[in-house]
Formats: sequence, C-alpha cells, structure tokens
Amino acid sequence: MTRLVEVRTRVLKQNDTVARRLRSRFEDAGVSVASLVSSPGAGKTALLERTLTELIGDFRVAALVGDLATDNDAKRLARSGAPIRQITTGTVCHLEAAMIEEAIADWLLEELDFLFIENVGNLVCPATFDLGEARRVVLCAATEGEDKPLKYPTIFNTADAAVITKIDLAQAVEFDAAAMHRNIQAVRPGMTVLEVSTKTGQHFSDWLQWLTSQAAEH
Amino acid sequence: MTRLVEVRTRVLKQNDTVARRLRSRFEDAGVSVASLVSSPGAGKTALLERTLTELIGDFRVAALVGDLATDNDAKRLARSGAPIRQITTGTVCHLEAAMIEEAIADWLLEELDFLFIENVGNLVCPATFDLGEARRVVLCAATEGEDKPLKYPTIFNTADAAVITKIDLAQAVEFDAAAMHRNIQAVRPGMTVLEVSTKTGQHFSDWLQWLTSQAAEH
Repeated sequence: MTRLVEVRTRVLKQNDTVARRLRSRFEDAGVSVASLVSSPGAGKTALLERTLTELIGDFRVAALVGDLATDNDAKRLARSGAPIRQITTGTVCHLEAAMIEEAIADWLLEELDFLFIENVGNLVCPATFDLGEARRVVLCAATEGEDKPLKYPTIFNTADAAVITKIDLAQAVEFDAAAMHRNIQAVRPGMTVLEVSTKTGQHFSDWLQWLTSQAAEH
Repeated sequence: MTRLVEVRTRVLKQNDTVARRLRSRFEDAGVSVASLVSSPGAGKTALLERTLTELIGDFRVAALVGDLATDNDAKRLARSGAPIRQITTGTVCHLEAAMIEEAIADWLLEELDFLFIENVGNLVCPATFDLGEARRVVLCAATEGEDKPLKYPTIFNTADAAVITKIDLAQAVEFDAAAMHRNIQAVRPGMTVLEVSTKTGQHFSDWLQWLTSQAAEH
C-alpha cells in the first residue's frame, strides 16, 4: 500500500509539472482555457456544442474532448465549425496534462481566444489532475439529484463554478433547486452556480456571459 | 510508467484473490450476490430501496453501499428494514473486494437470500475490480443518452445485465430506446437488458423476476 501511494504521488507530481508548463503557455498566448467535468451524460458535449456555436461569430474558439472510446463527441463538436481534437484514453478514467500537451502540439495558441477541454465523464478521478486550465467547471444535471455535491465533494471543491444542466427537466424530476444550492455552498462556500438548459436555451446567456467576463478578467 | 503498471497489476491480483475467497463464501452460504454500477445519479439507490422493500416480505435481504462521503444512502436504504452497511471510500473511486470482506465480517451469510452491493457512482473504475459478486448489473438512465455503452464499453462488458432506468422520462428527453439497445448489443452481444421506472413502477416486476430467476439458477 505504501508503495502504491508513493507511485501515485509521483504520477501526480509529474502531472503538476506538465500542468504548470501548460498554464504558462496558455497565459502567454492569451487564451482563456476552461475545462468541463461531470458524470457521464450530464450534458457536457451538448453544452459545449451550443457554446462553440454561439461564440464562434465573435471569438476564436477550439476544443479538446476526452473519452475512453469513440470519436463521436469530436464529430458532434466539429459541426460548430471550431477546430476540435478527440483524446481517446482507452481505459484511463480521466485526462492528464501530458495528453493535453500532446493534443495541442501543433496548434498556434496565439490564434485562439477560448480553448475548452471536455474531460472523461467521471465525477471522481478528474478532480486530482490539473490540466493547466484557468477555470474548471463542474456540471451536474437536475436529473442526477441534489445530493451529488455532498457525495462527490472533491470535484466540487476543485472547480471554480458549477453549472446545473437540464433544468428544463427540473419539474419532471421534482428537482429541489434550493437543496442543490445549499449542498454546493456547504462543500464550496461562495461558489458561482448557474442553472441552464442547453436544449431550450434557458439562462444560456448567463453561462456565456460568465465565460466572457472570466476571460476579460484574465 | 512501467512501475505504475506493475503496481496496478499487483493491486488487481490482490483484489482478485480476495474476490475469489468472497465468491466461495457467498456460494457456500447460498446467498445470491448482485452488485450495481452506474454513473452518479442514475438511480442505483432508488432502485435498490424499492427492490429491498419489495423483496423483504419473501426473502432475507441485505445491502452494502459505497460512497466517497456521507452515509445518506445507508440511511435511505435502512428505511426498507433490511440490514445495511455504508462503506465510505474517502477519495477511492470504486469499491474493492477487501472493503466488502471487512464490511460483512460479522454478518452470518447463511441467514441471507440476497446481498446487494451498490458501488460508488462511476462508469469507469469499478469495471476492473471483482467484488466476488455472482452478477453485476450496470444501470444507465434514459436521461444520460443512448451513446453511453459505446463510450464506456468496459463496464458494459463486465456486467451480466443492463437496466435502463428513469424510463418515465424517456419521452421528455427524446430517448431513442432502439439506439440504446443496439449500442448495448454492439458492445456486449446477447446481454439481458431491462427498462424500468423505479418512480412509477413500470416494468419493475421484470427486474424482480430477473433477480429471483437468477438466484434460483444458482
């Protein structure tokens, strides 16, 4: 057990070194980098597709998308017209900084305003891997229930904002928004929380506004 | 990297040894053991609570439930009247056989007909950890989308049956059941697939019947 912990610590240290290098490159290039983490099926790709489509008229946007298998998400996102790269992880349950570095090796970061990184659908393991992103956004669908922040505190703790997705279904699943907000604040006091429906567009402009205000702060 | 793979292989070997020991104990005791795996929020606890409540009149049932944090699920499940133990994993993203062995240390397995094990909500990492269960059931909510089997093939491959949950919401999310079945069969040909709504009870009897028929085969 001790040896496993040692090896794990070493892997995380190596990841942090690469993540620091990436963060410097992103800052130097003036690109605003946000990563998206969530359970499988919380709506990361749908949110990202709409985000790219809405931003692409005014900004230079691109995205990396991680999955164990298939390049379905990259194909979906490419419909927006933005440059997209799929990262296929095989059996690895999270993205690592080295995968990002490799994926963007021939991209000119200076030519981008926004770079989005969609992680593998997993509410646990991505928490401990810094990808050099300026902001990490955790998505949680109204259909998943209000207890998720309490049961997966680490990922909420490492994120800068939470987006509650699929709020068009809130009534159908008797979603208790007040309880969800209370649970998020219990885990991460002061966290920015947005509620959106990618499908109907409800409050989607709040999300876009948050993204652009964050980029401006940069 | 080589060293990490070595350590990982050793951990999996140790887990398999404990899992084999557990499987023998379960078989000797005549207890039918089923584990539930899924994304966070797919409805494992809700399905299990109803299952325990419906079976407890005719069978001796118990459950173990894994979460990173909180004992909320154990409290929920205890309302059924069945013996329940919470396994809190901290930052570990899956249950391991040794955790099961420790949790049941003072239980008399001979006095049980069914033992359920609810894994941590994670569609990736639990796949590679045998818990000694006779059957593994993967849950996927209609709200998660039809592409999940293709994107998380390993967990579907290691499961004996798939349960599509929240089918009461199928219409609201324009769930394409035919595509879901096609994707499951593409990953694991011949797999038993059930569609249920724990909330409305739709097809819930099919699930109970599957469980009892599997136990009888045993």
